Amino acid sequence: MIVLLDRACTLREKTDVVRLLEQEGYRVSVAPLGEETIVGILGEAAAGLEDRLARLPGVRRVDRDVPPYALVSRALHPEATTIRVGDVTIGAAEVVVIAGPCSVESEDQILTIARSVARSGARLLRGGAFKPRTSPYGFQGLGEEGLRLLAAARDATGLPVVTEVVSPEDVDLVASHADVLQIGARNMQNFRLLAACGRSARPVLLKRGIAATLDELLHAAEYVVTHGNPRVILCERGIRTFETATRNTLDVGAVPVLKARTHLPVLVDPSHAAGDRAWVAPLARAAVAAGADGLLVEVHHDPERARSDGRQSLTLPGFDELMAATRRVAAAVGRL
Amino acid sequence: MIVLLDRACTLREKTDVVRLLEQEGYRVSVAPLGEETIVGILGEAAAGLEDRLARLPGVRRVDRDVPPYALVSRALHPEATTIRVGDVTIGAAEVVVIAGPCSVESEDQILTIARSVARSGARLLRGGAFKPRTSPYGFQGLGEEGLRLLAAARDATGLPVVTEVVSPEDVDLVASHADVLQIGARNMQNFRLLAACGRSARPVLLKRGIAATLDELLHAAEYVVTHGNPRVILCERGIRTFETATRNTLDVGAVPVLKARTHLPVLVDPSHAAGDRAWVAPLARAAVAAGADGLLVEVHHDPERARSDGRQSLTLPGFDELMAATRRVAAAVGRL
Amino acid sequence: MIVLLDRACTLREKTDVVRLLEQEGYRVSVAPLGEETIVGILGEAAAGLEDRLARLPGVRRVDRDVPPYALVSRALHPEATTIRVGDVTIGAAEVVVIAGPCSVESEDQILTIARSVARSGARLLRGGAFKPRTSPYGFQGLGEEGLRLLAAARDATGLPVVTEVVSPEDVDLVASHADVLQIGARNMQNFRLLAACGRSARPVLLKRGIAATLDELLHAAEYVVTHGNPRVILCERGIRTFETATRNTLDVGAVPVLKARTHLPVLVDPSHAAGDRAWVAPLARAAVAAGADGLLVEVHHDPERARSDGRQSLTLPGFDELMAATRRVAAAVGRL
Amino acid sequence: MIVLLDRACTLREKTDVVRLLEQEGYRVSVAPLGEETIVGILGEAAAGLEDRLARLPGVRRVDRDVPPYALVSRALHPEATTIRVGDVTIGAAEVVVIAGPCSVESEDQILTIARSVARSGARLLRGGAFKPRTSPYGFQGLGEEGLRLLAAARDATGLPVVTEVVSPEDVDLVASHADVLQIGARNMQNFRLLAACGRSARPVLLKRGIAATLDELLHAAEYVVTHGNPRVILCERGIRTFETATRNTLDVGAVPVLKARTHLPVLVDPSHAAGDRAWVAPLARAAVAAGADGLLVEVHHDPERARSDGRQSLTLPGFDELMAATRRVAAAVGRL
Repeated sequence: MIVLLDRACTLREKTDVVRLLEQEGYRVSVAPLGEETIVGILGEAAAGLEDRLARLPGVRRVDRDVPPYALVSRALHPEATTIRVGDVTIGAAEVVVIAGPCSVESEDQILTIARSVARSGARLLRGGAFKPRTSPYGFQGLGEEGLRLLAAARDATGLPVVTEVVSPEDVDLVASHADVLQIGARNMQNFRLLAACGRSARPVLLKRGIAATLDELLHAAEYVVTHGNPRVILCERGIRTFETATRNTLDVGAVPVLKARTHLPVLVDPSHAAGDRAWVAPLARAAVAAGADGLLVEVHHDPERARSDGRQSLTLPGFDELMAATRRVAAAVGRL
Repeated sequence: MIVLLDRACTLREKTDVVRLLEQEGYRVSVAPLGEETIVGILGEAAAGLEDRLARLPGVRRVDRDVPPYALVSRALHPEATTIRVGDVTIGAAEVVVIAGPCSVESEDQILTIARSVARSGARLLRGGAFKPRTSPYGFQGLGEEGLRLLAAARDATGLPVVTEVVSPEDVDLVASHADVLQIGARNMQNFRLLAACGRSARPVLLKRGIAATLDELLHAAEYVVTHGNPRVILCERGIRTFETATRNTLDVGAVPVLKARTHLPVLVDPSHAAGDRAWVAPLARAAVAAGADGLLVEVHHDPERARSDGRQSLTLPGFDELMAATRRVAAAVGRL
Repeated sequence: MIVLLDRACTLREKTDVVRLLEQEGYRVSVAPLGEETIVGILGEAAAGLEDRLARLPGVRRVDRDVPPYALVSRALHPEATTIRVGDVTIGAAEVVVIAGPCSVESEDQILTIARSVARSGARLLRGGAFKPRTSPYGFQGLGEEGLRLLAAARDATGLPVVTEVVSPEDVDLVASHADVLQIGARNMQNFRLLAACGRSARPVLLKRGIAATLDELLHAAEYVVTHGNPRVILCERGIRTFETATRNTLDVGAVPVLKARTHLPVLVDPSHAAGDRAWVAPLARAAVAAGADGLLVEVHHDPERARSDGRQSLTLPGFDELMAATRRVAAAVGRL
Repeated sequence: MIVLLDRACTLREKTDVVRLLEQEGYRVSVAPLGEETIVGILGEAAAGLEDRLARLPGVRRVDRDVPPYALVSRALHPEATTIRVGDVTIGAAEVVVIAGPCSVESEDQILTIARSVARSGARLLRGGAFKPRTSPYGFQGLGEEGLRLLAAARDATGLPVVTEVVSPEDVDLVASHADVLQIGARNMQNFRLLAACGRSARPVLLKRGIAATLDELLHAAEYVVTHGNPRVILCERGIRTFETATRNTLDVGAVPVLKARTHLPVLVDPSHAAGDRAWVAPLARAAVAAGADGLLVEVHHDPERARSDGRQSLTLPGFDELMAATRRVAAAVGRL
């Protein structure tokens, strides 16, 4: 349930609304909506609450039938959200490319790749330090050491760092090294992790679950926002279907649908959708043509020896070509 | 099983190979492969046949383990196939757009739409006369009268006509009016229809089944080619997944994968993937960016009153905008 | 649109309703519904028709918003339909098992298998003479010769024969040899074939398409019934999903859902769902436990040498065990 | 990589193997395999390690190409695992039914339901205290208070308690009240949670993710076991497909496939697969007929007023009927 306050409501009136709700045991979120204020009630609202709220001064409207993801919905917040990370703005005219290896493997590796992707035009650096892996016997990442190497690569190149966080207890540690917290596809409905990232000051890059509907993705984003962090970036990365020619099926239609439903920026990860570097560039071009605000691309200087996802990682020259091709498509659709 | 003949084999040698096979009851296809000739054996080949064939003069290689769709595979036929329809070439540099209504409804309707899409840059006209409809109570198309109206629209605009054929017994009738025979998604594995279209002189536009793998699509194309018609155009039109935000999920990755596996041209139908006109243009741009050789787009001058698929049909101005946007993306990826 | 006539309407009134509709160019189906008569209008009905029909004598109700598959819906026809084939009744208390090879291969093969499955308790014989195969190079069946061998096996064992028909032009031929016409999964939306089988006097076994919803299956059945043949048997045979451990995913929930939505009998084919004989018996037991009216099972006396689907074919002793296990489960759920 | 030690290896030899591995920085699991011991190396093993291990005394075999889920695989551990909870044994002859509400809502509610399901024959009580919900505005469960109510219901009825844990930090708390830790579908690949449950002394009920392959489910179980807890119970609960007639599609074939691949017990949750109480009993019967070791069923004394999943919850009499029907099917397949 959502309470929309009057533009002209006083601080006192606003406080009274929130106090009433908290006294009755509700968790409450308060967020600006243009010049108005929107108060979201988390969890179920008791029958009758609606009427009592509607009678309070300063309340313009109480709505039980809002889009269930009220804070991220474009219906209630028509302007696009832009998210600033370092000197990069995600969600504005520029198609922002985030590139780097699947896993951080060594100082040499991450520096080599970071410098190269920076030269090719990447604006942020990605790399995994905590790796969620299907098998317990797979390489699980360098952990905190990986975070330090990422920070060193940022110092060397100026590229802000995006890296995955896999557990609520790691959020502070990861946030102390990284510029953007990534929540992976497998954790899209790890609600404690969403809440923990919602309490962080870092922007969150939230990847769509492998079989999540777009509405479920938006609900997951709503979790982050209701916990206090409005800076969420969505990422389509392919869904699981019957087709095995690609690792996943890139749902390129998700881009315009999400852009219509939410004000949040929408990126695409063509690498996990493709599963093979041969298909990464065409998928990247398609994503940009469909209106994506940016890309998340796996790149490795020596993919054959990568400790994870080598097959779908672009080489350094391959990434350089992708950037050139992507820029031409971006220009064709009126983006930078 | 496939028999590759020597470049230098004589007509006599070629005839002997075919005669041997036919005497033993095999159905046989003979097709050029660059400067060689490839003889395909339809159905199962008996044990031992391989050795006997290999001993015949003029035979270069007998291969039981060929890609199962030998004739359409790029492995055996590396150059891209181009298909000429009227003065249009499909599979060459130009991104060819086929546009028109879901169903032919009246002379006025089809002429209005045909003239408009021609002005906007469509190169062929689509329109359904025989409509496969989920329910027996839905509009089933105007039938032969619809074919005549399509032919009249071709006469008025110069646009060659693409229309669906739903049964082997209709192939001659449809071929006498239309320039390209369309096989719809529901009939992709209607093998008798594939065979009948394979005996026609008209090019065939073969749409991917709603849950067909890319290999199954290529096998279906192989049916058409083995029956004598090498002029097959493939069309990705969205697959069925769990996601319901779009009518189907456009598998944009199918474009580069198909282009790598086959020499046949690959089109995309963004309308059936989208299911809503709001998503048609972004999907069309994505398809072209991914390398599609053309598009198949539903357009109606009055979508609210269309007798089928109105919701996903572009208006006439909407199609004009799509063409302009598509041309810019085509140029960005080096196409016309 | 559906017209329900009064129980007491005269033949004259009935004729007048049908004549009016046919004069206006509608195709019409007339079917009994308990003691009433239901007139179905195929294709779209013009605005205003509803009111004119409602004014005719003998008309009880005109309904535009009927379940779109009015004739097969249980809503309008609550009693279960039973279908008699020879001395077997499908849809009654007995769980009817149809067994036999994927393809008829030889007289010896089909007789051996038919005699054995009859001894084990199968009530009908299945076997393919016209085989729809993914690849044009696969074994396509013995054709008419296969039909003759099936008829001979029926003569030898007394088992009525179920076999697939793949094209409208073959319906009469197949119906002259077989007792039940099977429409395969790939042809579930081959509407011309549905119509042709709808004009046959033989019962139709209609298999669910590999990615067909249950509603689409019911619409397909409605096609058969609206063309005059009310004796349709539905068959769930597994759907295509992301899981590859089985060839398809048996949608066992389809059984109770279909039984609730339609009065037609519902069978299950565990063989195509399983794809491996190891899983056939558990799936068969599950189907019967969920309420299936029967089973369609592939059996071969020498599966390793079967010309198609050998991997999923039960051996003769394997089928005998399946029958024993199935009978126990049938008894546990109150069936024979 | 897996090291199989000799049956006759000494404690010294075993220690040497483990010490070598730990000195080189590997995490190691040690588990009995019949009369042998299996040492599993978590994460990637360096080239050459294999040979050095093979030369150590007491080592029978080093295997890099083991089934990737070595500890849960039936290949290396043919006997079925049984898991004892209170006086109930899961994985033995009895089909064990776990029943209760989706969410614990009040003392009165949980006691009413627990007493009733106990009388009907349920052997364990389920109920959610920490609820993962798609929307942040949904009821999130009573938390610790819910755990206390569950424990009180156990005291009143003797039924051991199964309840979900959603975060590593809650494992100790939940384990202090519950008898079995449930990991929900959304957390099947929350690897930190798997590890934390792997360090608990409580058995773990691991539900299949909504789009997880059976191999991924087995890998997830392997995570729990490699962290020290061999008492894992698997649970199929329906997968996400295109079909919407049921909430999910029960993959009943998963039961025999899992029973073949792993020695762990396999349960089925028909409630989440069905999504509607009308389909729960047929799915439950199908699961037992297919060989499931037990069921997990949602039951509520007043489903219309349930705070979550009311639509799919059985009423108390409905559950009583399900138990009776299930017992008959269990007997038919040789179970109790």
